[in-house]
Amino acid sequence: MAVYTEVGDEDLERFVAEYDLGSVLSCKGIAEGVENTNYLLHTATGNYILTLYEKRVAEADLPFFLGLMEHLARKNIPCPTPVHGRDGKALRQLCGRPAAIITFLDGMWPRRVRIEHCSGVGAALAGLHVAGQDFPMTRPNALTVANWRPLLEASTPRAGEIQPGLATVLSKELDFLEANWPTNLPSGICHADLFPDNVFFVGDKLSGLIDFYFACNDLFAYDLAVCLNAWCFERDGSFNVTKARAMLSAYRQIRPFSEAELAALPLLARGCALRFLLTRLYDWLNTPAGALVKPKDPLEYLSILLFHQAVTGPGAYGLE
Amino acid sequence: MAVYTEVGDEDLERFVAEYDLGSVLSCKGIAEGVENTNYLLHTATGNYILTLYEKRVAEADLPFFLGLMEHLARKNIPCPTPVHGRDGKALRQLCGRPAAIITFLDGMWPRRVRIEHCSGVGAALAGLHVAGQDFPMTRPNALTVANWRPLLEASTPRAGEIQPGLATVLSKELDFLEANWPTNLPSGICHADLFPDNVFFVGDKLSGLIDFYFACNDLFAYDLAVCLNAWCFERDGSFNVTKARAMLSAYRQIRPFSEAELAALPLLARGCALRFLLTRLYDWLNTPAGALVKPKDPLEYLSILLFHQAVTGPGAYGLE
Repeated sequence: MAVYTEVGDEDLERFVAEYDLGSVLSCKGIAEGVENTNYLLHTATGNYILTLYEKRVAEADLPFFLGLMEHLARKNIPCPTPVHGRDGKALRQLCGRPAAIITFLDGMWPRRVRIEHCSGVGAALAGLHVAGQDFPMTRPNALTVANWRPLLEASTPRAGEIQPGLATVLSKELDFLEANWPTNLPSGICHADLFPDNVFFVGDKLSGLIDFYFACNDLFAYDLAVCLNAWCFERDGSFNVTKARAMLSAYRQIRPFSEAELAALPLLARGCALRFLLTRLYDWLNTPAGALVKPKDPLEYLSILLFHQAVTGPGAYGLE
Repeated sequence: MAVYTEVGDEDLERFVAEYDLGSVLSCKGIAEGVENTNYLLHTATGNYILTLYEKRVAEADLPFFLGLMEHLARKNIPCPTPVHGRDGKALRQLCGRPAAIITFLDGMWPRRVRIEHCSGVGAALAGLHVAGQDFPMTRPNALTVANWRPLLEASTPRAGEIQPGLATVLSKELDFLEANWPTNLPSGICHADLFPDNVFFVGDKLSGLIDFYFACNDLFAYDLAVCLNAWCFERDGSFNVTKARAMLSAYRQIRPFSEAELAALPLLARGCALRFLLTRLYDWLNTPAGALVKPKDPLEYLSILLFHQAVTGPGAYGLE
């Protein structure tokens, strides 16, 4: 949660004047988003989100992210839509950074995940996978199995500070995943970061999917594994099979998955656990003490990894 | 700018259910307010600010602050109004902290102060002083001349880290102020912290005064000195007499000030400079490295203090 770039009132007025949004009535920095600066912008025509893209998002990827949101919103996926200026452009510069105005979505992300949330997310993810199939742009996943070895190597010398022997455990796991990672499963547009804080609900109804800045082309079942890990483990580390069954059942009512996808799920869930463990480990070891954003605990994902290592088949996730 | 207390969606829904505001549609932590946690709350009936009072605000003072906002808003001073629950109460508990919902004000605070802003603030401050005259509650200023000595003493051992000899300069100034501080000038309700980030404008029109959490009973001319210091110095430290004239002229069109108040202005401005210098100095020396809020530069107020020490009369502020 952070505002990295402070936007002055005069800069803002000039920026908003490029759009047909009416005059600026208020603009408040919001404590959401780890990578970018976000403002809640209120104009004569309504509420919007103004995002300034900070250095962790590659500028070259922005047309993909914004184009994808627009494509999905047009297909009734509840996600933010970039607003176009009078010149037709959705992406421009503000305070020396790429910036865009996107539509505002009602809803709050669930701090305590319930079974109904898991069904909602399963269905929404399947809808996203289907709706993305005719999106013409592509972006490889920059954080897939091929990218994990360099991440691990960067953290290896100090990984023992977090837990003795951690680097050895992770290296063995990575050997296994590199040797066994599937390639011929159905793939397409994935959100790749659909954690609870990226999903809004009004009451029990899912009202929005946000933060498409990790979206990419990858295996659909991998995207599902991200959600399984992010939504179906309790705070004490235990796996909630009822939530998993609710999520997977809701998913396959909209996009049926194959036997091969189902069989690969335990391995993909291990890979996904390792991916978040490695990025959290790197951030944990490399975040300066006074940083605006506190790094997340990498060991939470070690316990998730160990759970999936012990799984003998997809039945553990509540499916026959 | 910080969110100190994270409010869960279920806690929030229970809290908002105590009011006639309709259902919660969204709630985002905003990066404003140094002392408290603020959320922009959007419900079926509109936008509101939800404030959780953190430990730097004394709970016993909250009825004064909330009562004052309500009193002033009723007299058409553009300030937030506390919203009452169905039980009639405006102040209740959320996440173990005192909390209130107040109305949302449009507008943005000016990052670059112009002359029109200074006129607007002068007029609004005078309006506040007049409107506060029949407010029945009182609160002494906890940061007036009598409180400065302990603040200075707490910082004296390390003040030299900021600038060699600083403690001696400040001690001499305080000797002078303690000996000469006026007591028989007109007094009443003061905002006492009316910096640019506490004043909203839509275009050139003043649309809101916020953050009443330093409000107190004190000399009106002292409150004016706070504004003079906060609005009429340029970033390079120079005093802008045109802005001062605009502010003071606009003020006295609404509340004429006496010869005695005018004559005391240079001394009050010195006192006000010392007050902000001392609190900033204390925060600078006592803020831990990883704190969410960066302390402000105390020396900015040393240069303002030196300016007022050299003033020979109120003519320096642009008035005959």
